[in-house]
Amino acid sequence: MNQNTKEFFMSEAIRLAKENVITGNGGPFGAVIVKNGEIIATGVNSVTSSNDPTAHAEVSAIRNACKKLNSFQLDSCEIYSSCEPCPMCLGAIYWARPQKLYFACTKTDAANIGFDDSFIYEEINTGFDKRKIQSENIFREEGLEAFQEWKAKDDKIEY
Amino acid sequence: MNQNTKEFFMSEAIRLAKENVITGNGGPFGAVIVKNGEIIATGVNSVTSSNDPTAHAEVSAIRNACKKLNSFQLDSCEIYSSCEPCPMCLGAIYWARPQKLYFACTKTDAANIGFDDSFIYEEINTGFDKRKIQSENIFREEGLEAFQEWKAKDDKIEY
Repeated sequence: MNQNTKEFFMSEAIRLAKENVITGNGGPFGAVIVKNGEIIATGVNSVTSSNDPTAHAEVSAIRNACKKLNSFQLDSCEIYSSCEPCPMCLGAIYWARPQKLYFACTKTDAANIGFDDSFIYEEINTGFDKRKIQSENIFREEGLEAFQEWKAKDDKIEY
Repeated sequence: MNQNTKEFFMSEAIRLAKENVITGNGGPFGAVIVKNGEIIATGVNSVTSSNDPTAHAEVSAIRNACKKLNSFQLDSCEIYSSCEPCPMCLGAIYWARPQKLYFACTKTDAANIGFDDSFIYEEINTGFDKRKIQSENIFREEGLEAFQEWKAKDDKIEY
């Protein structure tokens, strides 16, 4: 397979996902991040082995790529994930702002093997006061003081 | 203020948010995680100082709490965030499965000072083929092989 195609990069993400099942490192998920036609970082799911519920393949790959680029933005990068990102990973992708996302399995496929992705997508669309994890809004006025202080700060780094 | 109330824990999260503005560590966001009436971990936004777009207050607090508990689940924990979680952090909260979430500022408040939270909530509800970050579904059949291997694995740790 030509090593500079979307099919090659996705096959790498899937290879990492399969390897992750064999090693027992975590769930069957892998991701690679590509810039200028080269893989600059990879990530696998290591939730259970690292005791980190945020250590999904995409989040890990984003962290690794940003470290490599010394940047909190993935300008001109592409993310290849072996599965459609869960809301956490999709959010992480939006904050990292890559150029394009490719994914293989869908969130329904993930739900079919027991992962909560679809459930979390549903919960996000439910009002916070009706969610399965009970949520309560308190101290908004006090919280807004921090936002005012941010707004007034001259030398802040925005993102 | 009584140190075992939701108001006290939230005021701590807000204090961390304000401190984070002063130190220039990152955005005006703080979070604390409470178990059995005690703060077991805290987190602040360090996106710009650590070059990690996933280093939001809630994600950082979850990682710290899980490390402390040696667990990838926050059983019987409460999360106090100075702001309503963005989709990434809400996803992280669902994966960590705490008992309850408290938040102070809202996602609209965050949008008003220039953060993308509301925009990302809108994008999540947009079909993947119509999103601002272009998304493409390829190699699904190949990806499903990894899921089959996961399904067939006897000694997997599910989450």
